Amino acid sequence: MNIKEATRKMKQDSFRMAALSGEQRNAALEAVRIALLANREAIFKANHEDMEAAEKAGIAAAVMKRLKFDEHKLQDVTAGIAELIKLPDPLSKVQLARELDKGLELYRVTCPIGVIGIIFEARPDALVQISSLCLKSGNCAILKGGKETARTNKVLFEIIYQAAVHAGVPEGCMLQAELHNEIDELLSCHETVDLLIPRGSNQFVQYIMNNTKIPVMGHADGVCHIYVDACYDKEKAVPIIIDAKTQYTAACNAVETLLVNREAAEEFLPVISKALGENHVKVRGTREVAEIIPCEIMEEDAFDTEYLDLVLSVKLVDSVQEAVEHINRFGSHHTDCIITENRDTALTFMQLVDSAGVYQNCSTRFADGFRYGFGAEVGISTGKIHARGPVGLEGLVTYKYKLFGSGQIVGDYAGGKKQFHFKDLEA
Amino acid sequence: MNIKEATRKMKQDSFRMAALSGEQRNAALEAVRIALLANREAIFKANHEDMEAAEKAGIAAAVMKRLKFDEHKLQDVTAGIAELIKLPDPLSKVQLARELDKGLELYRVTCPIGVIGIIFEARPDALVQISSLCLKSGNCAILKGGKETARTNKVLFEIIYQAAVHAGVPEGCMLQAELHNEIDELLSCHETVDLLIPRGSNQFVQYIMNNTKIPVMGHADGVCHIYVDACYDKEKAVPIIIDAKTQYTAACNAVETLLVNREAAEEFLPVISKALGENHVKVRGTREVAEIIPCEIMEEDAFDTEYLDLVLSVKLVDSVQEAVEHINRFGSHHTDCIITENRDTALTFMQLVDSAGVYQNCSTRFADGFRYGFGAEVGISTGKIHARGPVGLEGLVTYKYKLFGSGQIVGDYAGGKKQFHFKDLEA
Repeated sequence: MNIKEATRKMKQDSFRMAALSGEQRNAALEAVRIALLANREAIFKANHEDMEAAEKAGIAAAVMKRLKFDEHKLQDVTAGIAELIKLPDPLSKVQLARELDKGLELYRVTCPIGVIGIIFEARPDALVQISSLCLKSGNCAILKGGKETARTNKVLFEIIYQAAVHAGVPEGCMLQAELHNEIDELLSCHETVDLLIPRGSNQFVQYIMNNTKIPVMGHADGVCHIYVDACYDKEKAVPIIIDAKTQYTAACNAVETLLVNREAAEEFLPVISKALGENHVKVRGTREVAEIIPCEIMEEDAFDTEYLDLVLSVKLVDSVQEAVEHINRFGSHHTDCIITENRDTALTFMQLVDSAGVYQNCSTRFADGFRYGFGAEVGISTGKIHARGPVGLEGLVTYKYKLFGSGQIVGDYAGGKKQFHFKDLEA
Repeated sequence: MNIKEATRKMKQDSFRMAALSGEQRNAALEAVRIALLANREAIFKANHEDMEAAEKAGIAAAVMKRLKFDEHKLQDVTAGIAELIKLPDPLSKVQLARELDKGLELYRVTCPIGVIGIIFEARPDALVQISSLCLKSGNCAILKGGKETARTNKVLFEIIYQAAVHAGVPEGCMLQAELHNEIDELLSCHETVDLLIPRGSNQFVQYIMNNTKIPVMGHADGVCHIYVDACYDKEKAVPIIIDAKTQYTAACNAVETLLVNREAAEEFLPVISKALGENHVKVRGTREVAEIIPCEIMEEDAFDTEYLDLVLSVKLVDSVQEAVEHINRFGSHHTDCIITENRDTALTFMQLVDSAGVYQNCSTRFADGFRYGFGAEVGISTGKIHARGPVGLEGLVTYKYKLFGSGQIVGDYAGGKKQFHFKDLEA
């Protein structure tokens, strides 16, 4: 069966998946968790083969690390599933309950989105993580993993699928695509796939966003900023900048550009330059910055660069307004921070910066669903339609309006014979 | 200036619009309301010219009615603005307030989406309505109306824009596109326009959905169903079906297909056939239906037809499950109703039908923001990402996460030196 047909069938059957109770979905998750632990040898064997092939193909060490699926990763993902089971059911939550008129009751109730396409590069743990999130939220999932871990993905998917179906999940509500050309086919399924979640490099996510009419949840770039205001605390600024740049350089919420108020520059630049040097971070800056500290000179139009490496762009600005304008122009609307002791300046910055996360006096690396206390993370969205920022399970649900009547017709209300009284009910 | 440049500038300036207080936005709305009333003669004169030109061009009478902007329409839209002013501010609402750790506080706060493109056919009142909604929600708007009412639109826009700017709304936060080829240009502005709201015919909305990468909020088709269960009340069924079909046939929430349980068919079809006949509704049905009542015979694959006219498709089914499968396959996920006295059957139907509105025993015509008590309606969305069903002001806002720290770095939490304690705060 090709992907178009498969997703059409999945779409038609998706209401069976939506109809499972919270207990049934949790039971399926528990079955998946146990099956993954019970079949560790088969998983590790497949992953070992993938790793050997990758090594032969000369894949870079940093990528190799992401391909690996060992006991540590297994413990991580199964612990994640155990936590997911404990989270409240995201479905059938009543968001609004209103009596429109006597005997005419309106309820807004959460329900699954339907069919979700998941496309990811490398990281086979993403397959386990995202398929578990779809199970928890009653969504059908079509998964396409990277070719580098094709063997691992195949084994993982089979274990998850068999365990879930055995536990009562309808057949055909989860599907794996294995061929690379199936990505483009999946991207064309806008009539049957409700949402795409891509996980991978900027270019990968950008390609997906540019080549589909299906809504995409995620982010391509993460060009995050830290702005050091005139009224700043050095004791906070230095560790925050070092953490945001070096704690995990490949993360989307790592800082890429440092903006410094001109009033603070003479004092602060030498201090931060020393700390960055000690942490092996290379500085690129404007000519003006280069007059104060040693750095490679960069041009204005390069400020949209996401290094994902031990490199930091530095620029001076006159005011919080200039910082905001720079961030809104060159940033990626992900997460941006101001270092200031002035509450009003912080509030101005937070109001005006058009990003999913706007921070005062803490590391941009806090932009993460787990650190926000969401329990599970679907991803981080830089879109403004639907979920924004770190997205928990609520990003995988929508709602429907249920209206219970007793024979009401609109003609009576349009004609003035009856009136609505709009009384909120206990949910 | 071309549309691409204009929206780029608008995007850069959109934070100025977002920074207006609720009082300022309401004051601008009040200024717009007064200016519209004060300039009625100029509006009516322009509309009169549009109507004359349309008549000469031989535009159909039904369309002519929608082009008209008279005293009645003026009263309607200005009353709408007065209501809008009274609605609570949709911005700066705290949706989540959580202490992640001591001195590290997370808030999720609503904010405008940014730049909204509004494209509408005919109905110049839509221009007033949607630009007011954008003002209330702090969004920048770029408006493109139909060429049939170009003169009316131009006058309306000038009145609204001048009044709003005079009341303190930043210049350039509202813009009118006047040339037809600018639609395609607007559709290509996915880097600067955050959301498109089209208002018009199916084909028009479908064209927009198919030709842009910008998220679109709205609906193309409205193929709504009523399913008459075996356990139905005739006294409810007949008026509901007549209301849903005839109260306003051109509406997207009018019923297009009637599904009848085979057990009820022999008794119910003759009754509804008589009532439909009295209301000048033509019936099209399957061969099986034609054996019971007089009707034009139709084929299975025509059940996706949206008539927007006094015509109704009729088909028999064996069960609520078969009704659900038909609706999910041929419907447009807008609004569908079951007529049943059996609460369990109603709940099953409501759970399984994949539509924005699922009703029991009332007319599909209730699918409307005002009838739901939202006060203002942005439109009705059949999408599942972002707002679904009738959309109030909340469909024009997103949120951002504000994190207030006091020097926290992620390294301390990753290294186990500190722990999050996730305490919900009073919002």
